[in-house]
Amino acid sequence: MPHATRRAALRASLRAQELDALLVTNLLNVRYLTGFTGSNAALLVHAESDGASLFCTDGRYLTQAAAQVPDLERVIDRPCDAALLKRAAGARRVGFESHDVTVDGLDALRDAAGGRSGGAELVRAPGLVEALRVVKDDAEVEALRMACAAADRALAGLIEHGGLRPGRTEKEIARELEGRMLDHGAAGPSFESIVAAGANSAVPHHRPTDAPVHHGDLVKLDFGALVDGYHSDMTRTLVVGRAADWQRDLYQLVAASQAAGRAALVVGAEVAAVDAAARGVIDAAGYGEQFLHGLGHGVGLQIHEAPALSKAGDGTLLPGMAVTVEPGVYLAGKGGVRIEDTLVVREGAPELLTLTTKELVVV
Amino acid sequence: MPHATRRAALRASLRAQELDALLVTNLLNVRYLTGFTGSNAALLVHAESDGASLFCTDGRYLTQAAAQVPDLERVIDRPCDAALLKRAAGARRVGFESHDVTVDGLDALRDAAGGRSGGAELVRAPGLVEALRVVKDDAEVEALRMACAAADRALAGLIEHGGLRPGRTEKEIARELEGRMLDHGAAGPSFESIVAAGANSAVPHHRPTDAPVHHGDLVKLDFGALVDGYHSDMTRTLVVGRAADWQRDLYQLVAASQAAGRAALVVGAEVAAVDAAARGVIDAAGYGEQFLHGLGHGVGLQIHEAPALSKAGDGTLLPGMAVTVEPGVYLAGKGGVRIEDTLVVREGAPELLTLTTKELVVV
Repeated sequence: MPHATRRAALRASLRAQELDALLVTNLLNVRYLTGFTGSNAALLVHAESDGASLFCTDGRYLTQAAAQVPDLERVIDRPCDAALLKRAAGARRVGFESHDVTVDGLDALRDAAGGRSGGAELVRAPGLVEALRVVKDDAEVEALRMACAAADRALAGLIEHGGLRPGRTEKEIARELEGRMLDHGAAGPSFESIVAAGANSAVPHHRPTDAPVHHGDLVKLDFGALVDGYHSDMTRTLVVGRAADWQRDLYQLVAASQAAGRAALVVGAEVAAVDAAARGVIDAAGYGEQFLHGLGHGVGLQIHEAPALSKAGDGTLLPGMAVTVEPGVYLAGKGGVRIEDTLVVREGAPELLTLTTKELVVV
Repeated sequence: MPHATRRAALRASLRAQELDALLVTNLLNVRYLTGFTGSNAALLVHAESDGASLFCTDGRYLTQAAAQVPDLERVIDRPCDAALLKRAAGARRVGFESHDVTVDGLDALRDAAGGRSGGAELVRAPGLVEALRVVKDDAEVEALRMACAAADRALAGLIEHGGLRPGRTEKEIARELEGRMLDHGAAGPSFESIVAAGANSAVPHHRPTDAPVHHGDLVKLDFGALVDGYHSDMTRTLVVGRAADWQRDLYQLVAASQAAGRAALVVGAEVAAVDAAARGVIDAAGYGEQFLHGLGHGVGLQIHEAPALSKAGDGTLLPGMAVTVEPGVYLAGKGGVRIEDTLVVREGAPELLTLTTKELVVV
């Protein structure tokens, strides 16, 4: 039961913070700790045991909650956060997710907790669950692996069936890619797919248009699949027809930078140093100004989560962190190349989850 | 320019609250007031004029912001909320969206505003933009109209091409429906489509499964299209093959309730009274316990927004409110019927945006 194990890990954090309980209101955190996938829920994790912990959702999810959260006492009420606080008898210091609860929401929690006198003391406790989520357990890595596989297979199918032939529009390609991910088990795309042909490939976050692909274009595809709530993220840049020398040179530069970034993904490395390893390759070639963003980001229940692999990023890599490595060079008005993998940090070499080739593909 | 008109209306609210400015951090509210569709932005609306107001986004959206927000001074910085507060010189009382800003977020705003002494005073100002959004202007109704038309056409195409034939699965039907909405101009579905066949139709928020449609099934389809950020919402329940008497009776009951709800949608009506008008029809037939939810909800930039048409709902109908009317009766283990339209409250009869027939369709 990964969820019970995760709650046990959280209990250790609570005791370290001298909290009697944590009120978990962030829905992704509730999902992480219970497996519940509905749209309204909260969780009171008691520092003592699961036996003293409570899960809450509303009447729409009565059956679903019984199936997904069989191992916790369930409360059916609205609003969930206040309902749980009212039942938090005996808990004196109750943490709340101050990075998630709004200013107005805290007033309602204070009322439910019995006001400033008498009831539980509400204590700011930001980021405790997120601190656990940064290291993925086996169940999470397996979901990421399936999500990455759906994306790999979708791209292979697209290429094999001539999906990138001249005349097709960016929108048509994006839609086919997304359909193929569904065919391979995705619940949906993990974010708005980027398909950028020709000069559009120089726009880092271009959204697909009705512009057609032309012979000789760079085509940048940045997309991912959602499986069991986990997000994959991969970018490949291909050439249609025949690659010009400048396109090959640009591609090799970005590929070398991406390889340097992957090589730097070792346990204990500073995240800023990983960014620097990849950035140095591009800087040395004189294209530092055309690498417009950070090297990568954590990925899991959110498409962007900690850690940030960037100049300003803070902290070191731990085994089990899932991150992207995605350098890019963008030549405005001409074209750009980005190459991105999703990987898991391991002792030794990182585990590569996105398996599509990184050789330059000309279709 | 609807956005300038909306900002002018907001300025009137600010003056009524004696605020010098409002810091708008909710991204949908920023979109409503400016037209900006990126994923990171904030807006400082000055009570005096647009000339003193400021828009902020980050470097990724430099070009997009210039195109979408040409009529305001633009700041490119991160984080946007703090960047705007630092530039709010001269504004003494600055409202913030206390229903949107988190407890930790407010600390950062206080720092940016210059601490408790010296700088601007941060004042809670929840829901000011939402209060405007509840009444839709012409541009908004036109977007809703297009979103509803995409859904109408998708359903017509699905039925015409035999999309509901026995043997097809709920998932296949949902996917075809969503594909057809894209064909008709939607950017995507406006929420997770519900396709529920047979006994599954008795589950109000059933998610599509691999279960096939059988001859004689009720099939409930609850779905919508997203156009220019606006959400349509429609439910139709059909019968496959041949309708049994109990299915016809149930259908006619829900249709009568839905007609009563639409008839009660008049300017000045209490929202709870609209719910009661539709609910009374179902109560009188003895199925009150099987109508498990409220009658409807506002719809716009969010799929669920104010006003709530429910027993507990508060307030009266205004011209230009866009709402759903969606009674349902659910017979557990047997089947359910829900019929839902999206409409705009008008002087006289409401304007119906979802035009698919509400006669019982047998396919």
